[in-house]
Amino acid sequence: MDDSIYTSYPPQLTPEQKEYLVGEVKNWALHHGLAVKPPPTFIPKESDPVGVLSSNAPVTLFPSPFPRSGYESAVAVQTTYNKLYAAISSDEAWLGKIIEELVEADDFIANLWKIHVRVKEEGYVQPLSLGLFRSDYMVHTPQGSTAPSLKQVEFNTISSSFGGLSSLVSAMHTDFLSFPPENPITYPAHPILKDNVPPDNSAVATLTGGLAAAHEAYGPSKSSPALPLCILFIVQDGERNLFDQFELSTRLTKFHEIPVFRVTTKDVLKSTSIPSTNPSRPLIYTPLHAPSVKFEATTIYLRGFYGPGDYPDETGWDARTHLERSAAIKCPSVLSQLSGCKKVQQILAEATGPDHLAHLLSGTDPKLVSQVRETFAPQYDLSVSGRGRELALDPSTAATHVLKPQREGGGNNIYRESIPAFLRSIPEKDWKGYILMELIQPPTTAKNMMLRSDGQVLSGHVIGELGVFGTILWKDDGEVLHNDQGGWLMRTKGKDSDEGGVAAGFSSLDSILLV
Amino acid sequence: MDDSIYTSYPPQLTPEQKEYLVGEVKNWALHHGLAVKPPPTFIPKESDPVGVLSSNAPVTLFPSPFPRSGYESAVAVQTTYNKLYAAISSDEAWLGKIIEELVEADDFIANLWKIHVRVKEEGYVQPLSLGLFRSDYMVHTPQGSTAPSLKQVEFNTISSSFGGLSSLVSAMHTDFLSFPPENPITYPAHPILKDNVPPDNSAVATLTGGLAAAHEAYGPSKSSPALPLCILFIVQDGERNLFDQFELSTRLTKFHEIPVFRVTTKDVLKSTSIPSTNPSRPLIYTPLHAPSVKFEATTIYLRGFYGPGDYPDETGWDARTHLERSAAIKCPSVLSQLSGCKKVQQILAEATGPDHLAHLLSGTDPKLVSQVRETFAPQYDLSVSGRGRELALDPSTAATHVLKPQREGGGNNIYRESIPAFLRSIPEKDWKGYILMELIQPPTTAKNMMLRSDGQVLSGHVIGELGVFGTILWKDDGEVLHNDQGGWLMRTKGKDSDEGGVAAGFSSLDSILLV
Repeated sequence: MDDSIYTSYPPQLTPEQKEYLVGEVKNWALHHGLAVKPPPTFIPKESDPVGVLSSNAPVTLFPSPFPRSGYESAVAVQTTYNKLYAAISSDEAWLGKIIEELVEADDFIANLWKIHVRVKEEGYVQPLSLGLFRSDYMVHTPQGSTAPSLKQVEFNTISSSFGGLSSLVSAMHTDFLSFPPENPITYPAHPILKDNVPPDNSAVATLTGGLAAAHEAYGPSKSSPALPLCILFIVQDGERNLFDQFELSTRLTKFHEIPVFRVTTKDVLKSTSIPSTNPSRPLIYTPLHAPSVKFEATTIYLRGFYGPGDYPDETGWDARTHLERSAAIKCPSVLSQLSGCKKVQQILAEATGPDHLAHLLSGTDPKLVSQVRETFAPQYDLSVSGRGRELALDPSTAATHVLKPQREGGGNNIYRESIPAFLRSIPEKDWKGYILMELIQPPTTAKNMMLRSDGQVLSGHVIGELGVFGTILWKDDGEVLHNDQGGWLMRTKGKDSDEGGVAAGFSSLDSILLV
Repeated sequence: MDDSIYTSYPPQLTPEQKEYLVGEVKNWALHHGLAVKPPPTFIPKESDPVGVLSSNAPVTLFPSPFPRSGYESAVAVQTTYNKLYAAISSDEAWLGKIIEELVEADDFIANLWKIHVRVKEEGYVQPLSLGLFRSDYMVHTPQGSTAPSLKQVEFNTISSSFGGLSSLVSAMHTDFLSFPPENPITYPAHPILKDNVPPDNSAVATLTGGLAAAHEAYGPSKSSPALPLCILFIVQDGERNLFDQFELSTRLTKFHEIPVFRVTTKDVLKSTSIPSTNPSRPLIYTPLHAPSVKFEATTIYLRGFYGPGDYPDETGWDARTHLERSAAIKCPSVLSQLSGCKKVQQILAEATGPDHLAHLLSGTDPKLVSQVRETFAPQYDLSVSGRGRELALDPSTAATHVLKPQREGGGNNIYRESIPAFLRSIPEKDWKGYILMELIQPPTTAKNMMLRSDGQVLSGHVIGELGVFGTILWKDDGEVLHNDQGGWLMRTKGKDSDEGGVAAGFSSLDSILLV
């Protein structure tokens, strides 16, 4: 695929075509639950105090072209990536050394590490861990290169979201491309759109398959008398992205026939308990509205507790500790969450020194190991003097880099020319809390149109980010019980916007057409 | 079932239970498209100019108890009712006599009749008609009666709505009653709720089955060269109840693989045409946004054009005439719409004089004919002096009656003590435009709670109305090609509210538990 494919895409819309397409998108989205709670900037809380409104998730009107080779290589390495991060989480010595370097510079990492240390002292009672992972990539097309390659932006080990809504966007674009079967009329004619649909998107089946595998592996109730078993989704109060989560919980209850309950981070200590008399430490769930009923949680799936905002005071940390010491299978455990630190990614990518990747993936087909390695973008340590600091402090080299803290999620990165001044504004001892990554260079001429959640239609040059979902269930001795990949997420943002948080509304959910 | 079943139902909710249940209802509804466009009193147009918001349809929190015998008898007579109204529409002489009496008193009826006369003069080119009907009933429990019976409120022959949303309400209440399977916790324990779910609700399959049968019966394209075939939904501009319609169109496209397009009443003349050179008069659809594409409509399903508001000027009548003279199978034809006049219902129910019912249903099992007859409430002619006028003008007897114009839909009826003064306020020659019906006496102690589309939770005494869906495809010579029933609608309104328009927000969609 060369860049020229983008120049005529997407097709121009007449006013009638635009009105029709926008109408189809909003109707399809609301009918199928491709939705979010409307942003407060659009509908203030006082206009809808009970919260009965939804609006379309921010979505592109057209699917985006994506190089087939890149998509296929991302899919091909996903189960190896799963194994890699399971191995990192199981290698406490290796991971602990990295984390202990970070605790000085990052309170959040320090507090998470404290939880692990404390539970380890008491003794973990659950040897199994579950990962629902998403590896995010951009197409890299540096000037003068002959073929695009795929470079990893980040690897998400906690609250990897949008599997549900992403599947729906694929289904929506597929419907538009193929309705009616012989004479599709939703889009104007265009060579890229002709007889083409997005690749199968099995994100919901893959992610729920992982949760169901954990539920099964938990075994019988550890309570006496035995309690009915369930999965808990630990969610944020006021979550706007809940329809994404419902795609997973509905499939778990309907297809896997596993009860799922939602518990907000602030209700964890109120509605769950661990009987002090039971050394197996089962996590007992008692619904706040039905206090006479008890379930035992086999698996806790965290869609909260991933960032500092979910720990407004000490009870947040107490709640996370409480979950960590329980017998429930954690998705993720504290160690698995910490394995997603940017510092880990940077160390794996180091071109010199020990070959951590080969060590962690020992026993894996070397071809797969090198395929994983090819996805690494150049990235640098800032803890000591050296190449990283040189690149970061010189404005001319900083211009092609991004500075990342350990945090997941958008909004925390420092870009390009802002890097030197930012670093000089914080104590040098805190620099090790960041890593420097060379910016990936996506195609510059890609365009799309998007319908925001507030109804605004935007169009212009865009940058896409492809996430591939995987799930793995492993034992602390390294044994892997379930390792699967399937499904993907395409996020497309305006080219001028450096951050990619879809829920914030300056970025869209998309799907892909392989070219 | 005696009235006492209602006194302890629904179970009382603690504040925690209420919060949980309301949360489950709104989340389930928005996730599954059990939705409406928010009413303008809740979200004014200027707050959401593009119309990207939806909110839950107004729904009851609990299903309502309903007598099993009543439900079963309504289901048992539906295909006979289908045949009856097909026979009425096919018997132009019989129906025409009734209608010609009404044209003086009712402009709307007069204009519809004119369309029929005009098209008949030119000659109809399509012998087939399709009915998607809904027969509405209330439980009648007069003082001193030993068993409740079911009395018909009205028979809907055009735009019979809520098949889609009603199926979703049944599914929602079923989920609540059975989740998790062994330990349902959404509702507090109650004998009526235990091990009970609503009867199967196949409204969507039944209604789309009728449309698909018509599409099939239309045969090959009448155009040369042949055009691809489709079904058109004729809808109102600014329709708030469009998610109900999407349940039907989505099943038609996905399950029956029939293309469906939506055309607003005001766009009919712009986007459809009948080639003057083709004596078969196929109805050609050209999407406004894709003017180079042509489809031929086999079937037009009217979800608009049912009331005067859809004919703001002459072009509305022109558009309806244009559709009527085309080769598309009409759902409904003008005659079939007119067969739904209250006057027809009243004449069928006349206790003295010719036995119209037996005549129209000649050849039908007399037991079924008498089952149909048992559903009639006493109703009276007001065109001449007699029992009807006596009952209507005396305040003491008017108090147990309702005065109905010919119009379908809520908002036009005159109730009880208001009847005498209303009649005296209009010319006596217009009285024949109305019929007088004895009020059905529903159970007085039924209660429920409802979540409105604006988030308000109401509770109190309620009255329920059960609609049963049926579909029939017939030829103008009386031959029946397809006759089916299946699916139902329960609407529950506050007891103090005499009218039942769900979309207006003072009434709710409900489901039933047979007791």
